[in-house]
Amino acid sequence: MNPIDRVRVRTNEGGTDFEREDVLAVEEPLEIRIRSAEGGPVSSFVTTMRTPGNDEELTAGLLFAEGVVESPADLIALERPADPRIDPELKANVLIGTLSAEAFGRAAGLRRGTVMGSACGVCGKTSIENVIPSDRPPLESPLRVTPELLYELPGRLRERQSVFAQTGGLHAAGLFSPDGTLEEIREDIGRHNATDKVIGTLLMRGQLPLSNRILVVSGRAGFEIVQKAFAAGVPIVASVSAPSSLAVALAETGGVTLIGFLRGRRFNVYANPQRVESRPSPQT
Amino acid sequence: MNPIDRVRVRTNEGGTDFEREDVLAVEEPLEIRIRSAEGGPVSSFVTTMRTPGNDEELTAGLLFAEGVVESPADLIALERPADPRIDPELKANVLIGTLSAEAFGRAAGLRRGTVMGSACGVCGKTSIENVIPSDRPPLESPLRVTPELLYELPGRLRERQSVFAQTGGLHAAGLFSPDGTLEEIREDIGRHNATDKVIGTLLMRGQLPLSNRILVVSGRAGFEIVQKAFAAGVPIVASVSAPSSLAVALAETGGVTLIGFLRGRRFNVYANPQRVESRPSPQT
Repeated sequence: MNPIDRVRVRTNEGGTDFEREDVLAVEEPLEIRIRSAEGGPVSSFVTTMRTPGNDEELTAGLLFAEGVVESPADLIALERPADPRIDPELKANVLIGTLSAEAFGRAAGLRRGTVMGSACGVCGKTSIENVIPSDRPPLESPLRVTPELLYELPGRLRERQSVFAQTGGLHAAGLFSPDGTLEEIREDIGRHNATDKVIGTLLMRGQLPLSNRILVVSGRAGFEIVQKAFAAGVPIVASVSAPSSLAVALAETGGVTLIGFLRGRRFNVYANPQRVESRPSPQT
Repeated sequence: MNPIDRVRVRTNEGGTDFEREDVLAVEEPLEIRIRSAEGGPVSSFVTTMRTPGNDEELTAGLLFAEGVVESPADLIALERPADPRIDPELKANVLIGTLSAEAFGRAAGLRRGTVMGSACGVCGKTSIENVIPSDRPPLESPLRVTPELLYELPGRLRERQSVFAQTGGLHAAGLFSPDGTLEEIREDIGRHNATDKVIGTLLMRGQLPLSNRILVVSGRAGFEIVQKAFAAGVPIVASVSAPSSLAVALAETGGVTLIGFLRGRRFNVYANPQRVESRPSPQT
């Protein structure tokens, strides 16, 4: 399936109308099914709305972010349904993951619901503890960046986005090396999916943790974006837009440097500023 | 809980740094629990990340969009956990809905997973059929709007947003009358939540369907935004940004007029243009 779709629209400009062709980001459901390498039935794990393309990487990244897959060895196979009688459109929207017995067990545990240990069963603090158990140390990384390097990253991400994505139809997530080289970029109608696709790509190559990389996202940085970065070991996350309160709290606890409103020659550092070179202004 | 949170950030501007106070949108989980009015245990229905505020309306709107609650009579009570030993922070993040037996049965059916009747079990077409069964007619409404009225709506939404939301930290959804009066506005870190809050507000007042109203959203119009509008009977949905392919397909099938890129004196009509007054340009 194509990630974009062409449609006829009626455009109004200053009061007059004309018909023209427009492009849309394709949004289609992807159902992720799982089975154990030890046998047993195939069952549905989750259905997510996504832009077709890099479905395998999306599946790997999503299963990793959920804590089901911990290493490439947990994801033994990823395949489309084989039955020739099945509608091709369905096949394009289903992926079946064969998981190690351990990973399959973790998926089953997730489905039964998480047991909350804290006094506060549903609160930001517990959300953070679910991602970073108290016995897990915050990320450590010697990575340091300069403001000048950070200023360059959103532009490099935009240059490599498809023409269509530049119009605002798709979100992008990009992974940069310490010298500011864009190594991977993935696009999707969903911000979370674009990040899962990038991390899933590196997971499948056996290149996690990404302890020397910078993740840049084209949208906001909410709790889940920081959660995914933390799981992949990414020490610096930069967003061109606003972070949320819980994203900042998670980044602080997890040792993730969180940068927001990275636009032009300006940005805010919300957590773990030690990785960004600082030149205090004379006034302070 | 406050919808915004104040933090200290380090701002870099053109190479020099200074410390200042910044405001963040609060993101906290809300767990929606349900029970039947006929008795039985309380069980967890869903946990969603949201900005605190209008939690009752969010819950009503979300249960409505999921097809669990069909009318105010289905939502018999909405309350916080009563046990005085429970952490206040948890209480603020949990709502317990007492549902009519019929609504509770629909919720239980959802949890068991939907039975797909179509040849294509997971595809855009099926997603649309799940929202609009073939025996359900498309929306009909005599509502007609002029381009001049549409141009005004994003500005009126922005004027009524909190100062903070204007900075991009929160999404807004607004419901407008046929003469362009903003009747309700709700804000949330999640686009979907802002729409659920608006529709939930009107549901709780017994004012659905909204067959004479215009819904304007501050972000993109994906499948779920159109789904929520269709469920509430809203005939015109306008977004300041891009729609997705599946949103357009759902709007076409459902009889919803879908407008995108409504900015300044310009917009595109993606589906059901008959509700927007047209003045073809001389060339066409």
